[in-house]
Amino acid sequence: MAIGVGLLGLGTVGAGVAAILIEPQGRHPLVAELQLRRVAVRDPARSRSLALNPALLCSDPEAVVDDPSVEIVVEVMGGLEPARSLILRAIAAGKPVVTANKAVIARHGEEIAAAAAAKGVYVLLEAAVGGGIPIIEPLKQSLGANRILRVSGIINGTTNYILSRMADEGAAYGDVLADAQRLGYAEADPAADVEGHDAADKIAILTALAYGGSVAREAIATEGIDRLQARDVAYAARLGYVVKLLAVAQREGEGDPLPLDVRVHPTLLPKDHPLAGVHGVNNAILVEADPVGRVMFYGPGAGAGPTASAVVADILNIAGTRQVTGTTSGAPLDPLLAASSWRRCSLVDGSQTCHRNYVRLQTCDEAGVIGRIGTCFGSAGVSIQSIVQFEASLGDQEGEAEIVVITHEVQEARFRQALAAIAALAEVRTIAACLRTL
Amino acid sequence: MAIGVGLLGLGTVGAGVAAILIEPQGRHPLVAELQLRRVAVRDPARSRSLALNPALLCSDPEAVVDDPSVEIVVEVMGGLEPARSLILRAIAAGKPVVTANKAVIARHGEEIAAAAAAKGVYVLLEAAVGGGIPIIEPLKQSLGANRILRVSGIINGTTNYILSRMADEGAAYGDVLADAQRLGYAEADPAADVEGHDAADKIAILTALAYGGSVAREAIATEGIDRLQARDVAYAARLGYVVKLLAVAQREGEGDPLPLDVRVHPTLLPKDHPLAGVHGVNNAILVEADPVGRVMFYGPGAGAGPTASAVVADILNIAGTRQVTGTTSGAPLDPLLAASSWRRCSLVDGSQTCHRNYVRLQTCDEAGVIGRIGTCFGSAGVSIQSIVQFEASLGDQEGEAEIVVITHEVQEARFRQALAAIAALAEVRTIAACLRTL
Repeated sequence: MAIGVGLLGLGTVGAGVAAILIEPQGRHPLVAELQLRRVAVRDPARSRSLALNPALLCSDPEAVVDDPSVEIVVEVMGGLEPARSLILRAIAAGKPVVTANKAVIARHGEEIAAAAAAKGVYVLLEAAVGGGIPIIEPLKQSLGANRILRVSGIINGTTNYILSRMADEGAAYGDVLADAQRLGYAEADPAADVEGHDAADKIAILTALAYGGSVAREAIATEGIDRLQARDVAYAARLGYVVKLLAVAQREGEGDPLPLDVRVHPTLLPKDHPLAGVHGVNNAILVEADPVGRVMFYGPGAGAGPTASAVVADILNIAGTRQVTGTTSGAPLDPLLAASSWRRCSLVDGSQTCHRNYVRLQTCDEAGVIGRIGTCFGSAGVSIQSIVQFEASLGDQEGEAEIVVITHEVQEARFRQALAAIAALAEVRTIAACLRTL
Repeated sequence: MAIGVGLLGLGTVGAGVAAILIEPQGRHPLVAELQLRRVAVRDPARSRSLALNPALLCSDPEAVVDDPSVEIVVEVMGGLEPARSLILRAIAAGKPVVTANKAVIARHGEEIAAAAAAKGVYVLLEAAVGGGIPIIEPLKQSLGANRILRVSGIINGTTNYILSRMADEGAAYGDVLADAQRLGYAEADPAADVEGHDAADKIAILTALAYGGSVAREAIATEGIDRLQARDVAYAARLGYVVKLLAVAQREGEGDPLPLDVRVHPTLLPKDHPLAGVHGVNNAILVEADPVGRVMFYGPGAGAGPTASAVVADILNIAGTRQVTGTTSGAPLDPLLAASSWRRCSLVDGSQTCHRNYVRLQTCDEAGVIGRIGTCFGSAGVSIQSIVQFEASLGDQEGEAEIVVITHEVQEARFRQALAAIAALAEVRTIAACLRTL
């Protein structure tokens, strides 16, 4: 009972998917049922290393979607348009969709999900978050008994690669980025990765699955690693922390809509935290929930092979349900696999949330400075875990000192109030860095 | 569209399952559709902390299975019989089964799967391996595009707790075991855990899912931690390793049947290995596959909450498919969820497999001993990574030395040949320990 697959895009991921489909031996026997029937590429005439029948290639993605022999549409072209329109076109034609496109799902997920529900087709997206790591499927199908308390993850491989090298080599952000671009670990235009937007897209998707309702993508507080200094990575290490770009979606109590704190920012993790050992381009997602406790999913966050593994898993799941119903559209959907939203969620006011913080201050090197800084925190009700003066480094100004404070958990508004008081101190030259801490 | 659940057993796991079912708020909305209709317990009159309608309780598990209002049978009583018979009875009645019983699945999995396939019902077992960690479902539904190369895991929480404390405290096995029993982390009769049988049951189950075919449970080479000495844990640490009870299922080439090396034994892991950081009662399973690479699943390996999370996930999956087909039996099964075997597998001759090894020798403290040991390894073609003489410890015999050898990867038969030659050396008093090394 073969099932026809149409592929939109034959870049890194698309080629990885095609490579699996045309060589099914040794994989789950259902892979052999998947037939690649048509592939949309920019230039069908270009020579390719993949042993693909050239008759399958065409330059018109709509023709692939409309091809009656195509029963499942696999969108691996990326970008917002025409990806969004092609996904909606496939759904309108009653064809289930598999996509690796986090940007389109993070921004148009509700529109796409509504269209899919109306037509009775699945839209699956395992590859959109965490590359090859099974995380979407487990969130949908394995953790439904739980009340999710927090999802936190390292979900951008490029920034984790840069941060790992900054930590290992003491290198500056700009130098490592340039090297990462040379090696192909970072794009020529790295903004989406290093400014945190890619991670924000992905945590938006995980939020909707974990809590059963979506939040406004553009309202997710997002800070990247592009202003992170090597000095803060080094000081963090001396205090027992590693710096990671963390994406977090955390429940803040009960209510309808369910209040959530969703954010992306560089974060100090204690060295024995499960996410602290995630190096290089790997990703990991930690789910904390009641009653399961803490479970973590770890693996390669990008790359042709891992991402293709996730895409084909989704195709297999659709093929599996087709064996049950005999059709790829119009039959009732499995509510776990379809993952429609079932609750309203909203973002809380960030100033009311509570966090631990790392602050680096440049001050004049005078007796009593630490006392006055401590007093400012104390007056605002901010409790301090440690306050350390680091030796002046090469290149620092004569007569300057560098003071690092790690606070206990404190409400953001109070913390900002303390910072304002500290900034006004005559002895404080500048608040040089401010990072969240777990 | 409520769905009736019958529970066999109300011990730790059963009570955890009931607690979720009777309080569905805040979980996936499908949980609210699950109705606990009947519960088999040893003594219905016993008082329980759980707010369960006493009319649900009965002492006859067959009556629960046979109850027409029970549509899904959840077996959480453990043990081989009557669990096996009750599972088969439920299947014969056309009722899908959820079980947390690794022993019965490891030994009677094929019989149960065949009966389930014939009747068109699912038998799901997420809780049988890794407690709350989603691993069965991801292996079945998320990694089907891959050729699995190796599955290795820390899948027994009791032994990992004991090993973690031995490493942290330098304590002796017997002392930590006694303490673990006192604290409830080890059973009064700890044999199944400490001798590796529980881990062997679980790796048998993972093997069948990962490779699509089962191997003979009783033929799995199994060595526990019950003869492990504190000294070897300490020496391993000084050489950069941690000792873990590892269960491994590894592909050894191609063929029909597919040749596999499946085994359970204490193993030295390099400290930066992803499984080396798994502490206490946590479990983790590392899957290495083509093209996904290395993915790891980590979390609590036991306990009421985590195990109940996994059990209810399975119930939800069956409820989800019921929403598609309108029935819990007789409809075509999703081949991914049903996970029937699709390939023949067989165990290879262990003497032909290749491994790295750690060997501790007690020798007389004479010049030239290391040379003669090295020569024995060399003559058998065994390449050595390191050979270290440790200082005599308190309590060692006067005039004795302790020598630790770590070999490169070597065929087991050759390695044994070298060991026999070493044992015959006049200077060697005894081969005190021999452990596999990654």
